[in-house]
Amino acid sequence: MKRVKGGITKPKGFFAGALHCGIKRANKDLSLIYSQVPANASGVFTSNKIKAVPLLISGKNLKNGTAQAIIANSGNANCLTGRPGLNDAAKIAKRVAKALAIKASDVLTASTGVVGRRLPASNILSKIDELVCSLSSKSSKDVAMALMTTDTVPKETEVSLKIGQREVNIGAVAKGAGMIHPDMATMLVFITTDADITKSALKKALKKSVDATFNCITVDGDMSTNDCVFILANGLAGNDTIKASGEAYGLFKQALTSVCLTMAEAIVRDAEGATKFVRINVKKAANMAGAKKAAYAVATSLLVKTALYGEDPNWGRIAAAVGRSGADFNLDRLDMYLGKKRVLFHGVPANINKGLIRKIFEKKDIEIDIVLNKGKGEATVLTSDLSKKYIDINAHYTT
Amino acid sequence: MKRVKGGITKPKGFFAGALHCGIKRANKDLSLIYSQVPANASGVFTSNKIKAVPLLISGKNLKNGTAQAIIANSGNANCLTGRPGLNDAAKIAKRVAKALAIKASDVLTASTGVVGRRLPASNILSKIDELVCSLSSKSSKDVAMALMTTDTVPKETEVSLKIGQREVNIGAVAKGAGMIHPDMATMLVFITTDADITKSALKKALKKSVDATFNCITVDGDMSTNDCVFILANGLAGNDTIKASGEAYGLFKQALTSVCLTMAEAIVRDAEGATKFVRINVKKAANMAGAKKAAYAVATSLLVKTALYGEDPNWGRIAAAVGRSGADFNLDRLDMYLGKKRVLFHGVPANINKGLIRKIFEKKDIEIDIVLNKGKGEATVLTSDLSKKYIDINAHYTT
Repeated sequence: MKRVKGGITKPKGFFAGALHCGIKRANKDLSLIYSQVPANASGVFTSNKIKAVPLLISGKNLKNGTAQAIIANSGNANCLTGRPGLNDAAKIAKRVAKALAIKASDVLTASTGVVGRRLPASNILSKIDELVCSLSSKSSKDVAMALMTTDTVPKETEVSLKIGQREVNIGAVAKGAGMIHPDMATMLVFITTDADITKSALKKALKKSVDATFNCITVDGDMSTNDCVFILANGLAGNDTIKASGEAYGLFKQALTSVCLTMAEAIVRDAEGATKFVRINVKKAANMAGAKKAAYAVATSLLVKTALYGEDPNWGRIAAAVGRSGADFNLDRLDMYLGKKRVLFHGVPANINKGLIRKIFEKKDIEIDIVLNKGKGEATVLTSDLSKKYIDINAHYTT
Repeated sequence: MKRVKGGITKPKGFFAGALHCGIKRANKDLSLIYSQVPANASGVFTSNKIKAVPLLISGKNLKNGTAQAIIANSGNANCLTGRPGLNDAAKIAKRVAKALAIKASDVLTASTGVVGRRLPASNILSKIDELVCSLSSKSSKDVAMALMTTDTVPKETEVSLKIGQREVNIGAVAKGAGMIHPDMATMLVFITTDADITKSALKKALKKSVDATFNCITVDGDMSTNDCVFILANGLAGNDTIKASGEAYGLFKQALTSVCLTMAEAIVRDAEGATKFVRINVKKAANMAGAKKAAYAVATSLLVKTALYGEDPNWGRIAAAVGRSGADFNLDRLDMYLGKKRVLFHGVPANINKGLIRKIFEKKDIEIDIVLNKGKGEATVLTSDLSKKYIDINAHYTT
């Protein structure tokens, strides 16, 4: 990732803070993002039927399209905690609102960590005043760090663009390393922008950007109960208000997508135990759904992921995963490329230099192209390999 | 598994043999099963769009419902080998027919091993006479061993039942340890019986038995290009011919299902690197499809499988997998049991003794019950945990 200077505090009028409140043994675990004026806001949530409690509150508070603060903790997901958990999250939102002198309905809440344990709400409540005092324009990285669970690096980014004569800024922090699969990942992403943009344009741009980025990555096929992407747009850049179409919308959406892509790639590169970054392109599928099926079948195949880890050029496993994916194709038209080198042509192995294929598998970044020669459907999925370290990380998560 | 005496040669008129022909570095890799009279026969094949070449030949030869021999090799899947591979398999079937003085169309072929490499057919062809000479009624275990790839134990079983006054025998050998997922597994299963049974009754009984057993297991979610279950029924038991309904059919189907279940469980217990045998029961789902979705989501979740491996009672991951499965349920009606102890009641953690839950996770056999309280759909899936050994086994399969 390129060097980040302001991150989520780059956009005008945004402040952030983070501290350790004792949910995790050490390290920061509680963070706050604040806009000095109420912002237009939108969110995308996990499609898991089991949604964590904070998301219920955030969903409700986003209904009017306005928000002014995000409070988030790591170390405990506050999920499957029933009514007591709901009361905990509501109390926290209320306490934050009071400390910031804003409406409780303008506070978004998010959590990540272990599922099924009561949140130590009193730890959080007793630290909120201190957290508010710590708000600054230099704490983006602290927030990114306070979101980390199995992440090994904090994830933040920023971009600037011109809308008319005005500079508009977008910043983001993200958390995610495992339990990553659309829609979406164990993933918290908070995006700030000083763009002046209508609620409907903001919602549309966020949905499109998320679909093209976070919904195209998978680490382990598991989808979290706590996933969310929030965006707050406070309008302080002073640009002409962006509406849901036109050139300014196009520029904003492009910038937002690039922010989301940077965060999505950062998550896959930080995938638990990963040693490889893998891009799977499915081309000429009967339709986009078929292309996605094939790409995800390959991306989630344990046999493919372990072969990638072992740098074993066992590409037959890739073909076998495509074969079981449900995508429509004829074997005698199936082509496959590894690192742009053709290994399969019309269902028959190409005349391959084995040493060359091995060299491709030894790289850190690997590209797999699967051409079904059936229609015009295309899809790309980003994923990682599966290593023994992934198992080390996940075999004793709560213990 | 209980001690097996005759295995696939227990039924009257069946003989078997196996030897090393040089596909694998060492150990037996070529096997033959022979019925002294033509047998009614049926098969169930992988639903992978990419089917290995031997299955194309077996499918064609099974069309008339008759077969007399099965030739199988391990170490090479003869898949994605195009027309040359098809010619190889056809030549082998023809050579076996000649040596046994039977019709080439009564020979079934099967292969398991690496995909995408040309079969060393000459090794096989030059050993067929020797293989025919080795046929005996004591070689069931040799055949089971000659099918092994990453399997650590040979898998065979047998049962006897009474149909009228006659003793009817069923024997089976199986191969499978990884790439296991319906429909079906990297799994070869060859079943012999001396039952006198019509072709249609045999086909129906096999389909039902496979659905209830092999199609309810998963190791790693991957489905092979080479899966098949073959059954040969030569009628030498002399029982009254079993038709597709009635008491005799019921008894036969029950016995066949028990044979299939023994083999299915043996495959899961021998799952690559597995340390746990896990039974996942989903109850009171809206329908059977929903129950299967939920059971498979849990069974294939890497987070669940790694927690099982680590004996980490992180049951929130089980709930999260159910949540993303697509099964219909309401969180406030969701119950869950581990080893028959309730951990979740109506969406809220039960008052659980953590030590007790940990003890359940420390057992080798673990049962998970998920009650959706939505309807009458039920499904059970058998699976294993995911260990670092699985990755060792699969990271360097071809190298």
